[in-house]
Amino acid sequence: MTKHPDLDDFRVPYFDDGKKRNHFSLDHFDPKAKPFSSGSKDADRARLSEVGLLLDNLQERLHAQRKRRVLLVLQGMDTSGKDGTIRAVFHEVDPLGLRIVPFKAPTPVELAHDFLWRVHSQAPAAGELTIFNRSHYEDLLVPTVQGELDADAFQQRCCHIRQFEQLLAYSGATILKCMLHISKDEQRVRLQERIDDPLKHWKFDVSDLEARKQWDAYQNAYRDALAATSTEYAPWYVIPADSKTHRNVMVAELLLRTLNELKLEYPPAKESLKGVKVE
Amino acid sequence: MTKHPDLDDFRVPYFDDGKKRNHFSLDHFDPKAKPFSSGSKDADRARLSEVGLLLDNLQERLHAQRKRRVLLVLQGMDTSGKDGTIRAVFHEVDPLGLRIVPFKAPTPVELAHDFLWRVHSQAPAAGELTIFNRSHYEDLLVPTVQGELDADAFQQRCCHIRQFEQLLAYSGATILKCMLHISKDEQRVRLQERIDDPLKHWKFDVSDLEARKQWDAYQNAYRDALAATSTEYAPWYVIPADSKTHRNVMVAELLLRTLNELKLEYPPAKESLKGVKVE
Repeated sequence: MTKHPDLDDFRVPYFDDGKKRNHFSLDHFDPKAKPFSSGSKDADRARLSEVGLLLDNLQERLHAQRKRRVLLVLQGMDTSGKDGTIRAVFHEVDPLGLRIVPFKAPTPVELAHDFLWRVHSQAPAAGELTIFNRSHYEDLLVPTVQGELDADAFQQRCCHIRQFEQLLAYSGATILKCMLHISKDEQRVRLQERIDDPLKHWKFDVSDLEARKQWDAYQNAYRDALAATSTEYAPWYVIPADSKTHRNVMVAELLLRTLNELKLEYPPAKESLKGVKVE
Repeated sequence: MTKHPDLDDFRVPYFDDGKKRNHFSLDHFDPKAKPFSSGSKDADRARLSEVGLLLDNLQERLHAQRKRRVLLVLQGMDTSGKDGTIRAVFHEVDPLGLRIVPFKAPTPVELAHDFLWRVHSQAPAAGELTIFNRSHYEDLLVPTVQGELDADAFQQRCCHIRQFEQLLAYSGATILKCMLHISKDEQRVRLQERIDDPLKHWKFDVSDLEARKQWDAYQNAYRDALAATSTEYAPWYVIPADSKTHRNVMVAELLLRTLNELKLEYPPAKESLKGVKVE
């Protein structure tokens, strides 16, 4: 077993931890780093399978108990691997136990409501493990980069988000937020692959190239969003994600730790069933 | 390769095929039969993995093309293995590509609407593979057995269902309905297992025993429901399901055939991407 660094070294300082938070920068995290890798890809994959089976069992307990709720939020630039993470981390988990919610650009009906309206209706119910593939954070990032949200409006939205996530957390939800952190170079390689392979064209939209041109603006918006919304009840983690295997292992380890901390148990046996014979 | 019998031998005669339909009986299908088994459990499991990978690729094409929609309806008595089928058949399929909709006893809000209201809102969108874990057929079966739906009202609901499924099918949906057919003996064994294992008590409800007492009434309701709603655009198949491995293989083969018939292809390459270099 390789000695792992502390997952908490990758946690964004909490919002109320003023000084530390002010010094938070994505530059402190190397997208190429593989701190949770054993050094061997085969060993990493074996570990991922192992954690996957544990997650499967924990999910069944979560479901059986029907008390806790778990929300995993995945964010990251285009090609950062949100889809790939879901596929790899949850390969062993019963699909019946997952609810994956993709958030696309808001529709006219959704835009006619406050920005958390469509998100709230998708919050996990008791016993559910819900994954947001993109999320309400898009409504911070995109309008900021497009110049439609000034600094005050940005902080106002962050405040709404903290309060919203507090409501979910105080109502029994465990919230875990992961930013899949890739380098600009790695994105270039991955976008080029999609362009060069006609079978991958359907994954590609020219707007991806426009967003890439605003790389720095997005990175800054991410930094500000993470710093303003990482809280004790809904922490953000930065996941070095240039290596896909590392990214998968780290997200899996984080989720495993989080679910283990919930001390999920099967509900107690029903005394009334003792000795019952089915006819 | 074992020679398989014809999947269509397990299809319930179409509604408009009057004479054949009138002779339809679940007794013609032995729940213990394993027509799609090779005779070796290992070989069957290997085949299931193989089909799983093919289904994964077909699902990606379905998603990439965003044209067709696929709906798999799973019905069956308690313990017939609806959950287990989903888990086994879709183990290799990307969880991002599945939407699994469980239908429980209707809530007061749902009961305040027509019985297809809650179902329609869950119909598959373009590019989606949706699985109904129980379905609108519960609204035929349960009230019939409980004496709340007389023969005329039953046929009226069947007519609504045929028209509803026709709407979905004519709008691009491929509908496949599987009745997991177990024997009364096998159900006894499986219910007893749940009772005898305290870790499985959460899966057990005393109402399961009440439903079991009405086994024959349910079988008759199933027979009438299947005969009245098996159509060319939404056929029913009876899946011998006393053997879990056989059940999984047969549902997988059926889905594979159905998806293959759709001739799903990746969308054509985008000419505009030719030679584009990412900067």
